[in-house]
Amino acid sequence: MSEPLDVRGLQRRLAEFAAARDWQPYHTPKNLVSALSVEASELVEIFQWLTPEESARVMDDPGTADRVRDEVADVLAYLLQLCEVLGIDPLAELSAKIDRNERRFPRSAE
Amino acid sequence: MSEPLDVRGLQRRLAEFAAARDWQPYHTPKNLVSALSVEASELVEIFQWLTPEESARVMDDPGTADRVRDEVADVLAYLLQLCEVLGIDPLAELSAKIDRNERRFPRSAE
Amino acid sequence: MSEPLDVRGLQRRLAEFAAARDWQPYHTPKNLVSALSVEASELVEIFQWLTPEESARVMDDPGTADRVRDEVADVLAYLLQLCEVLGIDPLAELSAKIDRNERRFPRSAE
Amino acid sequence: MSEPLDVRGLQRRLAEFAAARDWQPYHTPKNLVSALSVEASELVEIFQWLTPEESARVMDDPGTADRVRDEVADVLAYLLQLCEVLGIDPLAELSAKIDRNERRFPRSAE
Repeated sequence: MSEPLDVRGLQRRLAEFAAARDWQPYHTPKNLVSALSVEASELVEIFQWLTPEESARVMDDPGTADRVRDEVADVLAYLLQLCEVLGIDPLAELSAKIDRNERRFPRSAE
Repeated sequence: MSEPLDVRGLQRRLAEFAAARDWQPYHTPKNLVSALSVEASELVEIFQWLTPEESARVMDDPGTADRVRDEVADVLAYLLQLCEVLGIDPLAELSAKIDRNERRFPRSAE
Repeated sequence: MSEPLDVRGLQRRLAEFAAARDWQPYHTPKNLVSALSVEASELVEIFQWLTPEESARVMDDPGTADRVRDEVADVLAYLLQLCEVLGIDPLAELSAKIDRNERRFPRSAE
Repeated sequence: MSEPLDVRGLQRRLAEFAAARDWQPYHTPKNLVSALSVEASELVEIFQWLTPEESARVMDDPGTADRVRDEVADVLAYLLQLCEVLGIDPLAELSAKIDRNERRFPRSAE
């Protein structure tokens, strides 16, 4: 799998994966945002009973670390597929949002 | 804002943004996954009463398209901040996940 | 409003409310569960940056207490409407679930 | 199990269940709203790839119907436990909310 590790390359692989399994009819924007929120909740489930301190050490346990990494991948997969079907460039949107927030939220006094 | 549009560059800008506002104490992994799930739900809210067909045309309305882009940016922002505090490389995790899924789910018969 | 404060009475009022506004076509089970999860996330949003201790005092601030009560009502509203369209008795289901859990999870040693 | 099927009785059983297993320290309002949102998402997961029409027939399959009933019970369990720890009467809040909404949203022309 010598595909480059960039967002566009991953989107292409995800699109080919879905097409090869005839999953595109399921991938309406409405369904993809539902799936995205379900995967985000599976991340929350890992943390729901932890104290803040325990949550900061969550990667110390190899089994839990694997679950976290797996759910992060799932969230990103649905986010990139949503952006693909809607024609949104997620990195450009985030960059523009940070620009807006830098104007909106003042820094702490230094 | 000539920062390169890559994930590492965005993570650095998000970290500097949070540090300049003394927000790091709030950014426990537990809180960041909650915030991620809340932003994912704000995306769901845009689509919740739409038919599948209406959801496919959601970018036709400029106001709704702006809301969708804004929420996509928020989801990505919290996902990247979570990965930063946990030491996870999201693109590598997604690539590895696609590799696993290609072995796990057979293609449709051709 | 002398309606009795029971689940059946509230379900009847919610059904009449939706019917009087022609909202039933939107109230598919799929849409109602999305709306339920969105309202649950609006509750999470109130708590997302709080410490455990701050979260325990959330009702001390009258404005925040009103937001919490309002979101609790919204979650219950969609849960009851979902149960209405699916023919589920939520109190009976919860009672049966507690019965099952009492068999499944042993008590702490006394 | 001759407990009456009312909200107060179910809240009492849930409180005794948690106390007997020493689970109260985990039941901060912050954790309970996270758990509530996770259970709501488990309901969404059942419906995420269904068409509106398929979602309306979800109770026709006995296995899926059992999953839906089980998740409904879980959502209600966490909602009632949250209300218990915060001193909120969920039925009274919903009734008051319906009153407000009846003033806020006009009926369709008749």
